[in-house]
Amino acid sequence: MDERSRRKLLDILRVLAEADRPLGGTRIAHALNLAGKDMSQRTIRYYLNLTDAEGLTESVGRRGRQLTTRGKAELESAYVVDKVGFVAARADALTYGMNFRLRQGKGSVVVNISTFETARAGHAIEVMRRVYQAGLSMGQRLALAGAGARLGRLVVQPGEMAVATICSISVNGVLLAEGIPTTNRFGGLLQMRGGKPQRFLQIINYDGTTLDPLEIFIKGQMTSVSQAAATGDGVVGASFREIPTQAAEAARRLGARMERAGLGGILMIGRPGQPLLEVPVSQGRVGMIVLGGLNPMAAVEEVGVPTGNRAMGTLLPFEDLRPFTEVLR
Amino acid sequence: MDERSRRKLLDILRVLAEADRPLGGTRIAHALNLAGKDMSQRTIRYYLNLTDAEGLTESVGRRGRQLTTRGKAELESAYVVDKVGFVAARADALTYGMNFRLRQGKGSVVVNISTFETARAGHAIEVMRRVYQAGLSMGQRLALAGAGARLGRLVVQPGEMAVATICSISVNGVLLAEGIPTTNRFGGLLQMRGGKPQRFLQIINYDGTTLDPLEIFIKGQMTSVSQAAATGDGVVGASFREIPTQAAEAARRLGARMERAGLGGILMIGRPGQPLLEVPVSQGRVGMIVLGGLNPMAAVEEVGVPTGNRAMGTLLPFEDLRPFTEVLR
Repeated sequence: MDERSRRKLLDILRVLAEADRPLGGTRIAHALNLAGKDMSQRTIRYYLNLTDAEGLTESVGRRGRQLTTRGKAELESAYVVDKVGFVAARADALTYGMNFRLRQGKGSVVVNISTFETARAGHAIEVMRRVYQAGLSMGQRLALAGAGARLGRLVVQPGEMAVATICSISVNGVLLAEGIPTTNRFGGLLQMRGGKPQRFLQIINYDGTTLDPLEIFIKGQMTSVSQAAATGDGVVGASFREIPTQAAEAARRLGARMERAGLGGILMIGRPGQPLLEVPVSQGRVGMIVLGGLNPMAAVEEVGVPTGNRAMGTLLPFEDLRPFTEVLR
Repeated sequence: MDERSRRKLLDILRVLAEADRPLGGTRIAHALNLAGKDMSQRTIRYYLNLTDAEGLTESVGRRGRQLTTRGKAELESAYVVDKVGFVAARADALTYGMNFRLRQGKGSVVVNISTFETARAGHAIEVMRRVYQAGLSMGQRLALAGAGARLGRLVVQPGEMAVATICSISVNGVLLAEGIPTTNRFGGLLQMRGGKPQRFLQIINYDGTTLDPLEIFIKGQMTSVSQAAATGDGVVGASFREIPTQAAEAARRLGARMERAGLGGILMIGRPGQPLLEVPVSQGRVGMIVLGGLNPMAAVEEVGVPTGNRAMGTLLPFEDLRPFTEVLR
């Protein structure tokens, strides 16, 4: 199949994936038309015969076609290049989906979903608690679920525990609700000394990667969050963002209110046009540094307990998260 | 110290680092002037007093000042943001430094430097040999050095072995010598099926990271090079580049000659303006895919032998590298 045909085939699979229910030819044609990708019903039938034959779609009678597991996998791994900038795009989509109301402390926030073996839970929980106590987490709340329980759309597997930690991208959602746009620049490894942020040691730009930078740093065991929690000196995950200069004061006030609500705050906001921790910012903007939501999990990984982490995993109601002093004991 | 003063201080440290020998105030002023960063002798003296006091520089009598170990470390970690794109910049610098002559099969090439424990050498060597045999390495040659021996500027530590593998950036050097400029786009994880490249699963752009993408994938244990070598199906490191359309034929011929010389070749070259493995390329260019030079070390890491890897470690004479059939046994 040539490149153009493959694009068309994938466009059809994408429509079926987004619908999340079976669709007939007419509805597929309509959806493609809305996306500016006109195809005749005949062309669509041609491709659906192909995808049926390849096991990517299946007919469910008069209701139309739906994606198979294999079709979903195909779409997932297709056109990785289209997904570069995916991390940045996903962040914006989730931010837009939040409906957290700061005043009531209610509504959905973006969380990271992590897992570890139940057998190691005692050790993991103790390590996480120390990170929360040291203030190196994003906020003061989290959720913990055992095998069989649900966390968002995840059903926890036997022998595993799942954790939902507040994702630092939630800060962008709170700012957005107040009309402040945030630009995500990079995720990095932040050197802490005496409990104070010093400088970034490594950087990965959000718009040039298909992998979340903080997931990478954790997998690569490049953090020393436990040590930072115990002694004040260590390397933690953090992310660098920019907001308009005029919004700096409002963001500072919102940061303080978020902190009181237990959502987690803003680590640093820079001065207009001035570098922040040696990172230059664009004209008309100030830099903003936020702690990585996965820092507690990084600490767990550091002590030799393997973790699975998905940054920006999903949206969860803030009410479903509880103070760490209740959850981690 | 404010941001501007700190910049000046670091500029002076950088001049001392680049000189690699003690310099007096006049010479420092001259070097700064050449770099377009004029400072008066008086200003320079002021900062040198500061850096002496902080232990970053030391006076060596009439010959002037030199950097201390601490000064070097300070410079190393300073301004990480200036180093974003560092991976791309370092690649270009090393390419320019090569003097490999394809006809004679002699001259310096860019190598990666890796280390592992001597105690695990038997296992490591066997795994590496299989990767070379399967053709998933960059070329057919490498160097292996035991404790106390030298590999470039590295003196191998007691209890360790060091390996120099050909870095895929060497391909750029050979093309450059024939007047063909290469643009490095990204390092990625390449899915292999039946021994053939299928598509990229993950991507990190070279111009948005301070960490080498393939080092990250290895540390994150995201490869399955051993499996690819054994069965033809697996995930290997590879990098995506672009060259001018007019140079595609010449590059193909050079690739074949490099392969015969044992330097390693070019995995794929695309067609003008056409996507290569679903990756779109700029107008007037063709895509080029090259295997990652660190694939043998990724395989070693996969079987549980910890490795230290430095992509684009240094330049070594090609003559110092020997066929894997001699070295790995």
